[in-house]
Amino acid sequence: MDNSDAIVTPWEVRGEVDYKELIEKFGVDPLTPDIIERLRRHAGGLHVLLRRGMFFSHRELNEWIDSYEKGVKVILYTGRGPSGNTHLGHLIPWLFTKYLQDAFKCDLYFQITDDEKFLFNQELSTEQVAEYAKENLLDIIAVGFDPERTKIFTNLTYSKPLYNVAVRVAKHVTFSTAKATFGFSESSNIGMIFFPAMQAAPCFIHQYLNSEDAHVLIPCAIDQEPYWRISRDVAPKLGYRKPAGVYSKFIPGLGSGGKMSASLPDTAIFLSDTKEKAVKKVKNAFTGGQPTIREQKEKGGNPDVCVVYSYLYSLFDEDDKAVAETYASCKGGGLVCGECKERLARKVAEFLEQHRAKRERAKGYVEKFLVRE
Amino acid sequence: MDNSDAIVTPWEVRGEVDYKELIEKFGVDPLTPDIIERLRRHAGGLHVLLRRGMFFSHRELNEWIDSYEKGVKVILYTGRGPSGNTHLGHLIPWLFTKYLQDAFKCDLYFQITDDEKFLFNQELSTEQVAEYAKENLLDIIAVGFDPERTKIFTNLTYSKPLYNVAVRVAKHVTFSTAKATFGFSESSNIGMIFFPAMQAAPCFIHQYLNSEDAHVLIPCAIDQEPYWRISRDVAPKLGYRKPAGVYSKFIPGLGSGGKMSASLPDTAIFLSDTKEKAVKKVKNAFTGGQPTIREQKEKGGNPDVCVVYSYLYSLFDEDDKAVAETYASCKGGGLVCGECKERLARKVAEFLEQHRAKRERAKGYVEKFLVRE
Repeated sequence: MDNSDAIVTPWEVRGEVDYKELIEKFGVDPLTPDIIERLRRHAGGLHVLLRRGMFFSHRELNEWIDSYEKGVKVILYTGRGPSGNTHLGHLIPWLFTKYLQDAFKCDLYFQITDDEKFLFNQELSTEQVAEYAKENLLDIIAVGFDPERTKIFTNLTYSKPLYNVAVRVAKHVTFSTAKATFGFSESSNIGMIFFPAMQAAPCFIHQYLNSEDAHVLIPCAIDQEPYWRISRDVAPKLGYRKPAGVYSKFIPGLGSGGKMSASLPDTAIFLSDTKEKAVKKVKNAFTGGQPTIREQKEKGGNPDVCVVYSYLYSLFDEDDKAVAETYASCKGGGLVCGECKERLARKVAEFLEQHRAKRERAKGYVEKFLVRE
Repeated sequence: MDNSDAIVTPWEVRGEVDYKELIEKFGVDPLTPDIIERLRRHAGGLHVLLRRGMFFSHRELNEWIDSYEKGVKVILYTGRGPSGNTHLGHLIPWLFTKYLQDAFKCDLYFQITDDEKFLFNQELSTEQVAEYAKENLLDIIAVGFDPERTKIFTNLTYSKPLYNVAVRVAKHVTFSTAKATFGFSESSNIGMIFFPAMQAAPCFIHQYLNSEDAHVLIPCAIDQEPYWRISRDVAPKLGYRKPAGVYSKFIPGLGSGGKMSASLPDTAIFLSDTKEKAVKKVKNAFTGGQPTIREQKEKGGNPDVCVVYSYLYSLFDEDDKAVAETYASCKGGGLVCGECKERLARKVAEFLEQHRAKRERAKGYVEKFLVRE
């Protein structure tokens, strides 16, 4: 696979991503069996996203678990940029964060970067971003975070503590560093240039507000990793621990390549899609099947490139035996694509239905999760 | 006078400033007799700083008075960077702002830029800046602003509304513009680069918080003018009126050149100086006198270069006849420097004594002036 054209930055993911290459390029570590075993021990089980490798790399996750075992306060931090409706891809780190919160019974700071989306997108007004933030918030709460341990905030409504931490971070970040990390130019606006400090702030907000030591772990997609390099550089200068990270792959779009993206709505499953719409999208998905059923039965399919199989494998079929059978059966020509699509469509529809019910209930809990200042 | 070396930026004022040259360079307008007359009419009198030319230039002050006369809400905005103790030079714009507030009975937003001083000064911690801010605040209140019409805030404690306005400003300011205006470089930290948006924010905060039209006037020293170019550029893009400005010269230090500066404490009169200390500083001031009393009586002195005379003229002797007599008498050799120093020292000591009493009373009114969010 030639990956010379793949681009992975906090604002752009393009091309076929080689995750092994990314581990080297970003200087992170693969999630090895021993660290996965440590997580299993604490959680009493392994999340499907971990078992099937959707979460694939980390930075100092062992040290974070060490902190937990030594009784240091551990904290989770993740986020959402409210630039549109939520799709399945956004949900991946949140589902995993919930798993970690349940396992380690820890506080979670959840940042909604309304300032970022306003500053980086010429088309978005503050009102539009606020509307997306309000809608996204319900999807976040619906994931099932612990209301007693979760603080969700948007940068524009929780500005005071964030700005206070952000200026402390910003003092240690030169334009030169920010430019090298995020690719700013002469035409970048001055809000964009400051924003990395606002995204770094939640790494230290608990310590700042409570004057106590804490060790933060950030579950997120790998493209956000450059932000935490800034946080990690600055942390010792502010007298704080460096945040740890655990990073996911991107869930592919339903087409033939590239990650799921809101800008390609036909190949993305939005949490707001009707059952009919979602089923239709799955039925049109790219598979590893042969052009005809006869060829499929003769030569077998290719589950390794099949989006439908990857969805079943990564998230939607937790039964290890069932997915192994699906893989073998596809390869051997015993399955046709329609059957897998049918199975995935049923699971997606069920998932969306459950999510919608939880989202509806979330409306009654907004004030329990949202912090403002 | 060769002014090629004079530097006037928001962070540095060096060399002998030619104010006529500065008017051209900055593209502001001189305060002409007709506009001074308009102010006199509304105020029922002329402030000594206006009569004696310490306030010397403006931008659209006529339009601001037009707004007032038409019933548009008019607002004043000025500020203070809390990097040390307050000296006489800092007081100049505040005294004039009080005169304008009394004349136009208008709201005043007073910004204390604690974030700026922390970000721009490697030596200052947030704690030190907070301490200066607390002390400076008393000096500000002591000036006598109307407690019902004055909102004083620091950027780090009033961050939420300010940050919300600042991101709206920042989206319209490129790094290229900020660099050209303020001289940022690759080594500037990203907080410094964002800061001009925080300083611009109070130009629009009333409009933002109250959803109503307003016309802001900024009384300040001329070195702060570059900030308002940014505000004026951005204002129409946000649907707001461009802020007007009225600009003062710098009060000279007691030495032989340069503005009063906290970094040259022997030639600056701090509001915290004891009477004895202040008198001693005045007694050591640079004058336009001759080397000996005999020469002084024969040749006369030069009040045009005399710091002592300039203090009497600019601020400390409101009696037009008395200063004219001082000028003539000095030129004619009828005065020796000791007499003028004695007179100024008495006036300075009296001023400081009164200020200290007002400052003491100010301690009981902090909460009436301070706004937080």
